[in-house]
Amino acid sequence: MNIKHIKPDDIEKRSMEIIESELGDTSHLTDSEKQIVKRVIHTTADFDYLQNLKFSENAVESGLQAIRSGTAIITDTNMSLAGISKPALKALGCKVFCFTADNDVAESARSNGTTRAVAAVDKAANLFGNKNFIYAVGNAPTALIRLHELIEQKMISPALIIGVPVGFVNVVRSKDLIMTSSVPYIVAQGRKGGSTVAAAICNALLYQLYKR
Amino acid sequence: MNIKHIKPDDIEKRSMEIIESELGDTSHLTDSEKQIVKRVIHTTADFDYLQNLKFSENAVESGLQAIRSGTAIITDTNMSLAGISKPALKALGCKVFCFTADNDVAESARSNGTTRAVAAVDKAANLFGNKNFIYAVGNAPTALIRLHELIEQKMISPALIIGVPVGFVNVVRSKDLIMTSSVPYIVAQGRKGGSTVAAAICNALLYQLYKR
Repeated sequence: MNIKHIKPDDIEKRSMEIIESELGDTSHLTDSEKQIVKRVIHTTADFDYLQNLKFSENAVESGLQAIRSGTAIITDTNMSLAGISKPALKALGCKVFCFTADNDVAESARSNGTTRAVAAVDKAANLFGNKNFIYAVGNAPTALIRLHELIEQKMISPALIIGVPVGFVNVVRSKDLIMTSSVPYIVAQGRKGGSTVAAAICNALLYQLYKR
Repeated sequence: MNIKHIKPDDIEKRSMEIIESELGDTSHLTDSEKQIVKRVIHTTADFDYLQNLKFSENAVESGLQAIRSGTAIITDTNMSLAGISKPALKALGCKVFCFTADNDVAESARSNGTTRAVAAVDKAANLFGNKNFIYAVGNAPTALIRLHELIEQKMISPALIIGVPVGFVNVVRSKDLIMTSSVPYIVAQGRKGGSTVAAAICNALLYQLYKR
């Protein structure tokens, strides 16, 4: 196998062509939503996401608007943070944060008898409460539940919630819950999701504004 | 939903119980291999891994032996590196590395007209060539192909290759290729895989020796 002649850009282009050819009916998606679905399938090789990714009305536009104005993106794992394009963030004047592993968050979680993911949401709410931000949850259903609580209490008003935690306990319910809230969401309904999916959705949004 | 009373350890335990109850026939796996499959399913919520995870003979034991002697684990993405348990690594005297984003690797890739993933493998080979190491590939088929080349040339002799890149171009072939090599492997045959899968397999190995 000759590896010297395969350029990374060509690999992504060919992969997207293959995905496009196998997608089937995408009439339930806008063009922007389809780009996001394709990038998640690119990241996972799992075509289930064509059916399980749910977009609230104008969710993508709300996310793009926030990015255009230089938003903060907060992730619930450092794995997701590591996967989000730093050149794209820089070019668009956006910053990415993950508070889950911070010492003050660990301490707060301990004293409150809750998870670090929840304490990280509280930290984000304190820092960004009255501003637009995007919160991407790829791991912890408790983060999604806490976000929902704060939204209901009108403590925060994020531009977009990306709700794609993966798992077997409380995950499905946490996603159904965030889908009842009043803020824009992109959710992978069901058990599937993960840190790479969260990062892929963030990148898909960034790449709609940042041409590589 | 009351989130204060759900302990993270309990969540993982219950998740593993749910997975166990839905697994079906695992007679083709040893107990150790089954633990790894369960952790990958835990990470992805995708039961396809029960069928697509392939283990060469004694692959798990080779990985565990390397870990017992304080091995280096090299990942092809910083996302995977971020997902590997630092307390477990420390307790077991192991270190994790990712060279893919290093400046010298970027430079080497540019001058050689190859990918950073390939140049990162070469850097690892230079650093660890005659020692045992574990290489976990969750993203780049070119890394797997390069590892295969160096193994065939007898330049390296890793204790274990974790071959789980995800994708549509060269991925399937790169995995089939590494499965012909003489070194122990754990491979997710087919298109599926990813950085979280690579990290999950590393953690599954570490947790067989490090009790949390």
